[in-house]
Amino acid sequence: MSAVITLLSDFGWQDIYVGVMKGVIAAIAPDVTIVDLTHAVPGQDVATGGFQLANAVPYFPRNTVHVAVVDPGVGGQRRAVAVECECGICVVPDNGLLSQVCDRFPAQAAVVLDNPEYWRVPDPSRTFHGRDIFAPVGAHLAAGVPLAKVGSSIDPATLIRFSRPPVQPTKSCVAGIVQACDRFGNLITNIPGELVDRSAAGEQWVAIANGRTVPGGFSYGDVALGQAVALIGSHGWIELAVNGGNARDQLHVQCDDRVEIQWLSGDRSSLNSSL
Amino acid sequence: MSAVITLLSDFGWQDIYVGVMKGVIAAIAPDVTIVDLTHAVPGQDVATGGFQLANAVPYFPRNTVHVAVVDPGVGGQRRAVAVECECGICVVPDNGLLSQVCDRFPAQAAVVLDNPEYWRVPDPSRTFHGRDIFAPVGAHLAAGVPLAKVGSSIDPATLIRFSRPPVQPTKSCVAGIVQACDRFGNLITNIPGELVDRSAAGEQWVAIANGRTVPGGFSYGDVALGQAVALIGSHGWIELAVNGGNARDQLHVQCDDRVEIQWLSGDRSSLNSSL
Amino acid sequence: MSAVITLLSDFGWQDIYVGVMKGVIAAIAPDVTIVDLTHAVPGQDVATGGFQLANAVPYFPRNTVHVAVVDPGVGGQRRAVAVECECGICVVPDNGLLSQVCDRFPAQAAVVLDNPEYWRVPDPSRTFHGRDIFAPVGAHLAAGVPLAKVGSSIDPATLIRFSRPPVQPTKSCVAGIVQACDRFGNLITNIPGELVDRSAAGEQWVAIANGRTVPGGFSYGDVALGQAVALIGSHGWIELAVNGGNARDQLHVQCDDRVEIQWLSGDRSSLNSSL
Repeated sequence: MSAVITLLSDFGWQDIYVGVMKGVIAAIAPDVTIVDLTHAVPGQDVATGGFQLANAVPYFPRNTVHVAVVDPGVGGQRRAVAVECECGICVVPDNGLLSQVCDRFPAQAAVVLDNPEYWRVPDPSRTFHGRDIFAPVGAHLAAGVPLAKVGSSIDPATLIRFSRPPVQPTKSCVAGIVQACDRFGNLITNIPGELVDRSAAGEQWVAIANGRTVPGGFSYGDVALGQAVALIGSHGWIELAVNGGNARDQLHVQCDDRVEIQWLSGDRSSLNSSL
Repeated sequence: MSAVITLLSDFGWQDIYVGVMKGVIAAIAPDVTIVDLTHAVPGQDVATGGFQLANAVPYFPRNTVHVAVVDPGVGGQRRAVAVECECGICVVPDNGLLSQVCDRFPAQAAVVLDNPEYWRVPDPSRTFHGRDIFAPVGAHLAAGVPLAKVGSSIDPATLIRFSRPPVQPTKSCVAGIVQACDRFGNLITNIPGELVDRSAAGEQWVAIANGRTVPGGFSYGDVALGQAVALIGSHGWIELAVNGGNARDQLHVQCDDRVEIQWLSGDRSSLNSSL
Repeated sequence: MSAVITLLSDFGWQDIYVGVMKGVIAAIAPDVTIVDLTHAVPGQDVATGGFQLANAVPYFPRNTVHVAVVDPGVGGQRRAVAVECECGICVVPDNGLLSQVCDRFPAQAAVVLDNPEYWRVPDPSRTFHGRDIFAPVGAHLAAGVPLAKVGSSIDPATLIRFSRPPVQPTKSCVAGIVQACDRFGNLITNIPGELVDRSAAGEQWVAIANGRTVPGGFSYGDVALGQAVALIGSHGWIELAVNGGNARDQLHVQCDDRVEIQWLSGDRSSLNSSL
C-alpha cells in the first residue's frame, strides 16, 4: 500500500508548474500516489484555498500528506511549515491557508521547514517554493521521514489563523456569508448544516439572500426545475442551489454576501446551545 | 498489476469534488490506478457524458471499473446501478448515461446499489452520491468484490436507454446529426465511419451541413490550410474539420445540427445493408 | 519502483483524448506512473508546447519517457520519432516540438517509429497518432522495450529544429523576446537568468518592455504591491511580474514582444563572454 500525497494550488492547469512538482515528487518517492485536489484556486486567494483544503482532507486516509501552495508571500518572510493533524500532515506556507483545516483538526505538532537537506536544492527559487521546498519535503514525509527531521519544532499556536466571520445565532435566525461558489453555481455558506439538521422534525426553515426567500429542503428535487432551494450541501454547510440551474446567476448572490436562516416558528434555544 | 478505475463527471476542475472521490477510492483501494476521462461534461448533460464515456471505454483494459457521474436526479428516485459489460463494469446513475456504452457493449449483468455496506457511510449525502455511493462501490469492485455483493440483481433490459436519432440511409445519401464538438472545433457526427470506409475505392463522397458542401477525405492535410474536410474521426464517426482551423466556427454548425453524406455516384445498396 | 511517463499535448481537458491515451498506456504498462505536464498548449502551437516541455523535463527522473503531442501535421508526411537524451526518452512528432529540449539535452540517439508491432493497431487513425502510435510506443519504452526495437535508427542531426530568436548582447544591454506568459500573467523572456545572476553584486539592472522600465530584483516582494519587477523566474529565464498582480495586463506586453535588459553602469565585457 502506497502513501498518498495531495496537491492543491492556484497554479492553474495551463502551465507546467503542477507537472513539475509531480516530477520532483516522483524522483524522491516513486511509489507515492499523487492526487490533485484542485489547482484552480483563484490566484493568491488564500481564503478560498483554505476552504477547499479543509473540505477535502476529511475524505483521505489518515496518513496522507497534503501539500497546498497558495503563496502570495513566496520569497519573503512568511514561514514554510509542516503541520501534523489528525487528518494527516499538511505542508504549506504559514499564511492562514491552514485555518479551516485546524478548525476541524487541531494541529498536534508543527515544524518550520528550515532543513535544506530535504529541499530540492540548497538555494531554492525565490518564486517557486512549491517545486523547491513544499513538494520535496512532502515527498520525503510521504516516504517515511519523520516530521522532526524536516525542520525545527514550532508551537502550533503560533501558526497564522484566520477566523471565519462568526455565525450569529439569535432566537429566530442565524446569519452567515457565502464562502464559496462551485462550478454549478451552488452558493456554499459558512453556516453549519447541523443547525437545520438538528432542528425539530417538520419545522420549516428558509434562507434569505439578496432579499430573496429560499425554502429549506433536503435535495435538489424537493423543488420544481428552475426553482431555488436551500439544503445541507455535501461539505456539510448550508448551500443555496437551483434545481437544474445556477443559484449564483439566478439569485444574483456571490461570495461574501450575507445569508440568513430563519425558522418560521418554534423555539431556537436548543439550537443556539449547539453553536 | 493494479486494476484501473476511470472517472467521468460534470464536476469540473475548479472544485474539489473529483479530488474527494479520489480520496474515498484511495482509502478503500489504495493500489488502484485512477484515470480521469473528463470532468468537463457540461453540467447535467447526460447525452454528452454518455457520448464521451462510450468513446473512451474501448481503449481500457477489460477489467476496468468505469465510474461515471452526470446525475441531475441525485437524491431523487433514479436508481444507482453497476452494470457489467464486455468493456468492464460501469458504476452510474440509471438515467441513460450508459446508453451508448450498451449500444456497443451489451449489458451482461446489472445490480442496483442497495447494499449500504459498500457505501462510504450508511446515510449518504442527498447531493453527492459520487462521493458516498459511486466512488466507494467502484473502489470495492476494483478491489475484487463481486458484482452480486454490492446490490440486488436487476434485469439489464430495465436500464434506461436513450436511442440516438437514427441514421436514415437512402440510395444516395445518409443523414445524421452532430453529436459532439471537441476542443479543436471538430464536429463529430453520429454517422459511423464504416459507411464511407467500406465504399468502393475512389468513390467520392461529400458531407453537407448548414448548406455547405465539404469534401470527403482521409486526413486534415488532404485539403489546403483553412479548408474544411470530412473524414473518419478517431472515434470512428464521420467528422467535419478544418485543416489548421475550427470547423464549428467556420461552418457555423453546432451540436444537434443535421449533417448529410452524399455519394457523387454509384450504387449504395451494398452500403445500406450494412446499417 | 515504477517508471514514469509524462504526457503533454494541445488536447485540452474537456474531451476524452487524454483519458484514452492513458487507457492505452494502462493496457500495455499497467505499473507505469502517468503524469500530466499540461494539455492546455494552444491548439497546434508547437513553439509553446516545446517551451513547456523543455522547462518541465529537467525535474523528472532520468529514465522518464516523455510523450508530447502537438501535431498539426498528423496523418501527413511528418515523421513520428523517439529521441534519447540525458533527460530521458521523448516520443514526439518530428516537427520542431523537441527543439528547446535538445538545446539543453542534446539528442544521443533517435529512431523513426516505423515498427507497427509497437503501435496500438497496424492501421492507425489518420487523425490521432497520440492514441495509436505515441502513447503505445511510449508505454512499451517505459515497460523496458529498447529504443532500437520501436523503429529504425535515424541521425539525430536530421530532427527538425527551431532556433529561438537569438539574444543579442551588447556592451550595455541584452535583447530578447517574451516567449511565454503563465496563468498569473508573468511574462517569461528568452533571456537566461545567468546573465543577471552573474553580474557583479550590487550592480543595478532594469528590463524595458513596451516603453516601460521595470527594476531588476530577486522576488515579487522586492517591490510594493501592484508594482512591476523583473527577476529570474523559476524556469531560469528573466521574467517580468507584478507583485500581487498581472504583468501582461498591466504592462500591455504579450508573447513575442521585445524585452531589453540594461545595466545602469559598469562593464559588460565579462558578461558577454559567458553567452
